Amino acid sequence: MRSLWLLLIPCLSLSLAPFVQTEKGLEFPRYDGNDRVIDINDKNYKKAMKKYSILCLLYHKPIPDGKELQKQHQMTEMVLELAAQVMEEKEIGFGMVDSHEDVKVAKKLGLVEEGSVYVFKGDRVIEFDGLLSADTLVEFLLDLLEEPVEVIGNTLELRAFDRMEEDIRLIGYFKNDESEYYHEFKEAAEQFQPYIRFFATFEKSVAKELTLKMNEVDFYEPFMEEPVTVPDRPNSEEEIVAFVTEHRRPTLRKLRAEDMFETWEDDLEGIHVVAFAEEEDPDGYEFLELLKEVARDNTHHPGLSIIWIDPDDFPLLIPYWEKTFHVDLFKPQIGVVNVTDADSIWLEIDEQDLPTAQELEDWIEDVLSGKVNTEDDDDDNDDDDEDDDDKDDNTSENPKQYFPSFP
Amino acid sequence: MRSLWLLLIPCLSLSLAPFVQTEKGLEFPRYDGNDRVIDINDKNYKKAMKKYSILCLLYHKPIPDGKELQKQHQMTEMVLELAAQVMEEKEIGFGMVDSHEDVKVAKKLGLVEEGSVYVFKGDRVIEFDGLLSADTLVEFLLDLLEEPVEVIGNTLELRAFDRMEEDIRLIGYFKNDESEYYHEFKEAAEQFQPYIRFFATFEKSVAKELTLKMNEVDFYEPFMEEPVTVPDRPNSEEEIVAFVTEHRRPTLRKLRAEDMFETWEDDLEGIHVVAFAEEEDPDGYEFLELLKEVARDNTHHPGLSIIWIDPDDFPLLIPYWEKTFHVDLFKPQIGVVNVTDADSIWLEIDEQDLPTAQELEDWIEDVLSGKVNTEDDDDDNDDDDEDDDDKDDNTSENPKQYFPSFP
Repeated sequence: MRSLWLLLIPCLSLSLAPFVQTEKGLEFPRYDGNDRVIDINDKNYKKAMKKYSILCLLYHKPIPDGKELQKQHQMTEMVLELAAQVMEEKEIGFGMVDSHEDVKVAKKLGLVEEGSVYVFKGDRVIEFDGLLSADTLVEFLLDLLEEPVEVIGNTLELRAFDRMEEDIRLIGYFKNDESEYYHEFKEAAEQFQPYIRFFATFEKSVAKELTLKMNEVDFYEPFMEEPVTVPDRPNSEEEIVAFVTEHRRPTLRKLRAEDMFETWEDDLEGIHVVAFAEEEDPDGYEFLELLKEVARDNTHHPGLSIIWIDPDDFPLLIPYWEKTFHVDLFKPQIGVVNVTDADSIWLEIDEQDLPTAQELEDWIEDVLSGKVNTEDDDDDNDDDDEDDDDKDDNTSENPKQYFPSFP
Repeated sequence: MRSLWLLLIPCLSLSLAPFVQTEKGLEFPRYDGNDRVIDINDKNYKKAMKKYSILCLLYHKPIPDGKELQKQHQMTEMVLELAAQVMEEKEIGFGMVDSHEDVKVAKKLGLVEEGSVYVFKGDRVIEFDGLLSADTLVEFLLDLLEEPVEVIGNTLELRAFDRMEEDIRLIGYFKNDESEYYHEFKEAAEQFQPYIRFFATFEKSVAKELTLKMNEVDFYEPFMEEPVTVPDRPNSEEEIVAFVTEHRRPTLRKLRAEDMFETWEDDLEGIHVVAFAEEEDPDGYEFLELLKEVARDNTHHPGLSIIWIDPDDFPLLIPYWEKTFHVDLFKPQIGVVNVTDADSIWLEIDEQDLPTAQELEDWIEDVLSGKVNTEDDDDDNDDDDEDDDDKDDNTSENPKQYFPSFP
């Protein structure tokens, strides 16, 4: 059975729940064995489109030969089956499209990236390129079922909005929910749901706190203190969509399960500046605050895009990252990662004495200028590529470090 | 294969990762097929204890007859195998103890609850009674590897401490890390790691902000603004342990994957007051703030213990909870749940006009006095128990509601 386990286990859970539980109220759902996922083809795709308010199509490579790969494929199917079962009453349908057998359908539906789930909702198509686990997918779909615009009714609710600094979000002030401009705003919101959050208020007091004029829309980049106002209010749907599209890549963003692969693919010239910081840890928090400061000071630099990873969000990847990148993730780290071979180089950080914002900024400038890059150090460490495999255990003995010339 | 899927899927993930990824750097670990989990018995348990700095033993029921149950058991084993593989370099060992075959060993080691993982670290035994998924278990063990006391070095780090209002935490002010009282504090911390967080500072400025005197220890209950000071400083390990043990059940606590079953078992006379609130949602946030206010006002009431569940943390359970409890989890909810049969009764909440703290308090008093209970309404709804099964879909048509007499 072993080959089967290979893919099952990473986030496998609950096996014990049925044994341990005498109490009721925490039973996790289990797949009931009914097939709900449709094998989409030229004949049935229109019917499926009609039948469901939301249809999720996994665009996948042809089912491979070789037992193990086939089992991987089966498991993928099972993720969809469980999601389909859990979401059945919400009228959400699931299907699979084979990238070779169903070329025509794929073309018609605009499916491009193998491995992505394309979600059809009304006249929209939303690509899901995140962690394909039942819970990540279900959470994503539940977010899609919420109103595209959340209304902030009072200043207490506004605090909830203030706390979402990790997310790209927009907020507009409108007369009421009949306002044509609110309608335009809502239409724009639907284009980005659930990745970008849209809020509105009809309350003068709330608008005042946000210094929003009537029919004005502010765009908040993650971790930035000051929003950018969408110009030329009142704005049409098209204006808002264009503005968001232009401004959506942030200077600093957090890696999220729901779009982690998409984010990773969105590299700049093959590299990512990656920062590991555990927000729950005092050092990690302090380092993150530094990083935000640097990001704020350099937000107008088009070439700067930093990915912050909170190791707590991906516990199973921690040992993998420590091996691959030769870093100790019990403390904050920042480095440059080459996404083609995962070769990387890291700033040496003294936990007791974190770098200053200026030192961090200088290092980042060296990265952007190419003075710091992942190749220079490869002579003193030829086994980079082997290091990526699980057998390597000299994480601590053989760290890759770079010593920037600090002022 | 279906019966096998039953347990695999809930949190199954990554099946697609190998297909989608052209970039490197986000590869999740897969079980390599090597057996690492030890079948513990009378002969080998001492050796295993010696060999590993940390040993995790799953105390389980005898392997059942019946294919499906056996496969469930295999899957449980696989969760441990992957955790063992991922944690191998950290010198953490894993084993299984059969509650019938290995009665003797279980007695010697003090294993009691079937389905729990007992973690042996030095002379300590820590029970893990949370979600048995590889990532929850690995995160738990990584927390165990950190220092039992985190040192707060400056006021910026103190802000990280301030943000942890969800957690029970203690903080002490000591001369330096050689102080004998710091040593006592550290010994106490080890008794509660990783469930209860211990912090210390040697900085006068930090102590001043916390109004801590030298060798003084403050205990913070979750969501309470003011800490309680452990009496009679300087305190011995025993004094601190006794104090924490006495004060550890909070008035309001958040359900966490790492101890969700333990928390659920910790009911008061068979019931839980359960509040659902999505912190990321403005209404949920507003309701949560209300709830905290009520909890603060009633923290001295020994009979009051509220469990807050953020649905975002358990997406797969949302549809299950909506069916079982007949509530709409897109909006905040508070109710009483009978843990023996999951029968429940919920306060009717108008999303546009949330109850006041006073109204919430009155309702909670009615619960504590028994005036609100899960039985009274059962006449108008005889199929409670059937409602628990997945076929039931009249969530919205047939909600259970209670109309408290508000002032």
